Amino acid sequence: MTRTPLFNRVAIIGLGLIGSSIVRGAMALGLATELVTTDASADVRQRAAELGLGHRIAGSSAEAANDADLVIACVPVGACGAVAKEIAPHLKAGAIVSDVGSVKTAVLKDMAQYLPDTVDFIPAHPVAGTEHSGPDAGFAELFVNRWCILTPSEQAAPEAVERLKAFWQALGANVETMTAEHHDLVLAITSHLPHLIAYTIVGTAEELEGVTESEVLKFSAGGFRDFTRIAASDPTMWRDVFLNNKDAVLEMLGEFQEDLSKLTRAIRRGDGEALFDHFTRTRAIRRGIVNIGQDAAGADFGRPHPHLPPKDDGKS
Amino acid sequence: MTRTPLFNRVAIIGLGLIGSSIVRGAMALGLATELVTTDASADVRQRAAELGLGHRIAGSSAEAANDADLVIACVPVGACGAVAKEIAPHLKAGAIVSDVGSVKTAVLKDMAQYLPDTVDFIPAHPVAGTEHSGPDAGFAELFVNRWCILTPSEQAAPEAVERLKAFWQALGANVETMTAEHHDLVLAITSHLPHLIAYTIVGTAEELEGVTESEVLKFSAGGFRDFTRIAASDPTMWRDVFLNNKDAVLEMLGEFQEDLSKLTRAIRRGDGEALFDHFTRTRAIRRGIVNIGQDAAGADFGRPHPHLPPKDDGKS
Repeated sequence: MTRTPLFNRVAIIGLGLIGSSIVRGAMALGLATELVTTDASADVRQRAAELGLGHRIAGSSAEAANDADLVIACVPVGACGAVAKEIAPHLKAGAIVSDVGSVKTAVLKDMAQYLPDTVDFIPAHPVAGTEHSGPDAGFAELFVNRWCILTPSEQAAPEAVERLKAFWQALGANVETMTAEHHDLVLAITSHLPHLIAYTIVGTAEELEGVTESEVLKFSAGGFRDFTRIAASDPTMWRDVFLNNKDAVLEMLGEFQEDLSKLTRAIRRGDGEALFDHFTRTRAIRRGIVNIGQDAAGADFGRPHPHLPPKDDGKS
Repeated sequence: MTRTPLFNRVAIIGLGLIGSSIVRGAMALGLATELVTTDASADVRQRAAELGLGHRIAGSSAEAANDADLVIACVPVGACGAVAKEIAPHLKAGAIVSDVGSVKTAVLKDMAQYLPDTVDFIPAHPVAGTEHSGPDAGFAELFVNRWCILTPSEQAAPEAVERLKAFWQALGANVETMTAEHHDLVLAITSHLPHLIAYTIVGTAEELEGVTESEVLKFSAGGFRDFTRIAASDPTMWRDVFLNNKDAVLEMLGEFQEDLSKLTRAIRRGDGEALFDHFTRTRAIRRGIVNIGQDAAGADFGRPHPHLPPKDDGKS
């Protein structure tokens, strides 16, 4: 039994990690009668053709959006306004327009100004990803059991929100609806601040005097390597996130700084009790995340461990 | 062909994650004619007996160390001195005494004061671990392809260093020798500061007003969950690390704060170029770590991804 497609024509604009994952999932599940895709880069369009990403690859965003029932801009937050401006004249009445950006207030404002009243504009953010970028990095399972947050514009019809919700659920996601402002506050702590901190500490390690880069790499299994993964995320995407969610990020950074000062003082004063209490408290959060299935239950994220060397390997 | 044991009697004092992993590996590989183990906790000794951790489980550190050729204290850094004091009268001449602590200057000082001149004292630090603790958490492969750092005391004979090196290599580790002071500086950036930062941000997220704990957990896949893993590490161990490597940690924290100020200023001023440049630079470090085999090459640490939902799951 094949699923009845949820949409007739779906346009995916931007074929990076997220866009190409949506395409792979939607193709595998038959969520659209026709999937039209495109990317601003001719190289990526070429690669997408080789990978079979879409039934048809359009030469421009305008062409892709033409006559589509659902258009999803999968581009960096800073490029969303330009995409909306380009596609606006080509959108058919009743189309749903969405995006996948990690910031929602700015995207809502940037895109809404160009979009006609005849479409339902529903910004979205699938909270999923890896440190890899580009059309080869995507995979159909990326959204399974992850959350996708919808922040519908005031004009969006409830039926349209339900249709977009069904699309994300079909891709395996859980869907929650909230205001763009609240989204930006929540993601500032669960995503933006962690990235900022990771980017910072990796930069710090790189520039140290007295510790070589080779030492940093070799002994990174002590904890540092965990930070390097998210500090390897796409630079354009993350530049745009910080430029467009400045206030919430700075607010969370202020909270973080206060807490870091407290722990620093405990270290300086040798206050073992304060340290122990704090370190005990934070364990519970990890358990909560694993319990609701938002991280691997196995040790060390399930990282693979090679086998023991053979008994007679001559090493000794 | 069975390996000729590297040591006659080996004593492992402390059966947490590291101690029990050494025991499992050494048993599997036949590295000792007799493995005598113990733990300060009667419950852990009981569990160790059930798990078969050692040929013989001793009732005290003194009893375990008696007549051993190699004694390894696998206890929190703050407990190393007391172990040395207890075992000192029972050590046989020519024995090698070591530990596995994450701080080396303090351990060297704390233990050396009690140990007789007739033993070779060689502090060690296997840079390996998971967020789990206790005798059930260990596994024989934990040290494979990880680095173990030796910081021999001045009195230690070169032949003894070679013997301990062979032991760690047999467990699969790469071995490097350096001074205790340099170790503490290197680990402050590759391990201690990352843990402090992770413990801080997880605490910050837990106490926020305006964002519920349920939201923090649900949307943690945006990056936050990576931090919760190391913030779930053993509180006693980490309290002791910060109390005993205060100077190096505070020095690295100072460097980190300077860099964080720079990035914060770039965000406040909307300096996209500075952000982009920084975010591009940090990617190289990740590639270096993966290239030398110190982290998984696959996306997202190789975290498992469940399958797509079936086409007709009724969800839509």
